[in-house]
Amino acid sequence: MTKGEDTKLAILETGLDMASQVGLEAVTIGSLAGAIGMSKSGLFAHFQSKENLQIEILQFAAQDFNESVVVPALKTRAGIPRIKALVRNWIGWSAKLTGGCIFVSASTEFSDRPGKVREFLLHQQEQWVDCLRRIAASAVQAGDFRQDIDHEQFAFDLYSLLLGFHYYQKLLRDSETMRRQQAALDKLLADYR
Amino acid sequence: MTKGEDTKLAILETGLDMASQVGLEAVTIGSLAGAIGMSKSGLFAHFQSKENLQIEILQFAAQDFNESVVVPALKTRAGIPRIKALVRNWIGWSAKLTGGCIFVSASTEFSDRPGKVREFLLHQQEQWVDCLRRIAASAVQAGDFRQDIDHEQFAFDLYSLLLGFHYYQKLLRDSETMRRQQAALDKLLADYR
Repeated sequence: MTKGEDTKLAILETGLDMASQVGLEAVTIGSLAGAIGMSKSGLFAHFQSKENLQIEILQFAAQDFNESVVVPALKTRAGIPRIKALVRNWIGWSAKLTGGCIFVSASTEFSDRPGKVREFLLHQQEQWVDCLRRIAASAVQAGDFRQDIDHEQFAFDLYSLLLGFHYYQKLLRDSETMRRQQAALDKLLADYR
Repeated sequence: MTKGEDTKLAILETGLDMASQVGLEAVTIGSLAGAIGMSKSGLFAHFQSKENLQIEILQFAAQDFNESVVVPALKTRAGIPRIKALVRNWIGWSAKLTGGCIFVSASTEFSDRPGKVREFLLHQQEQWVDCLRRIAASAVQAGDFRQDIDHEQFAFDLYSLLLGFHYYQKLLRDSETMRRQQAALDKLLADYR
């Protein structure tokens, strides 16, 4: 890795931390430059615009998410063990962030902000929902789920559960959240068996 | 209503619209004054600080939420009809907003922003979760739910479903969202019967 790439990686790491804590929209060339003690023009040279910076942070987060959540789950046996691994990895990933999950918060922040950032986020989120659909399909193939299940519905049900978990964990900070999530997941898996 | 109260109400309505579209944290004395064509000092006289303004917007939204979602549901027969009414009203309320649900977005925005706004939001959200718990308890009393259900778990399950609906509706804008939500709700109610 060149020194330039090294610097950029460090910038993106701090940018992701900031986005996790205060939201992606608050991460601007100016605010991030301040946070890392770099000049605005220095940061500008790396990203050229706020939108590019925000997209690169999302891209950086998506790559980390993929490596930490999706890839290890795909190495687990298809079916219920894979789904449980995906949920466990998702929870682990969102726990290691300094604040909330960037995709959850950006999804509400950018719902009504048309533009390149929303487009990138939407594309990334459609891939995520597609991943949930495919994991349901592979559970059918593995014989863990019934043949007649609706893969789309499973994606909706499982992501709803994760969003509920995130809300209870990050805002309410309810000590029972892990247990609630576990009970909801057991019920969900039983419904599709 | 006095002219002063009338003005304040109009300010809060615009503030809620702004918060729904760009998030509560972006609603400041300055940005809101610009949006309504009022002087910053004029707006300052009404609210004294950004935090107070944000809290009053949350309070205003909570009152509207209560009148539009909770009160009419409580007038419906306890049990499954009441739960269905609550969900229908929640969806109707979030649809009439110009952007996303202020409570959903503020919950991610203020997770990691300690202070008066977070405290107010948390208190309001605890009341909401308590409302979901009580609605489960009344469904048990009405004989629609089993005696041995966990009211807390029901609150977690139902709010997860609404968060999933909100995400699919506002970010993905998936045309099947209403049907997914309906299927998930039917399954949830069947689980507790």
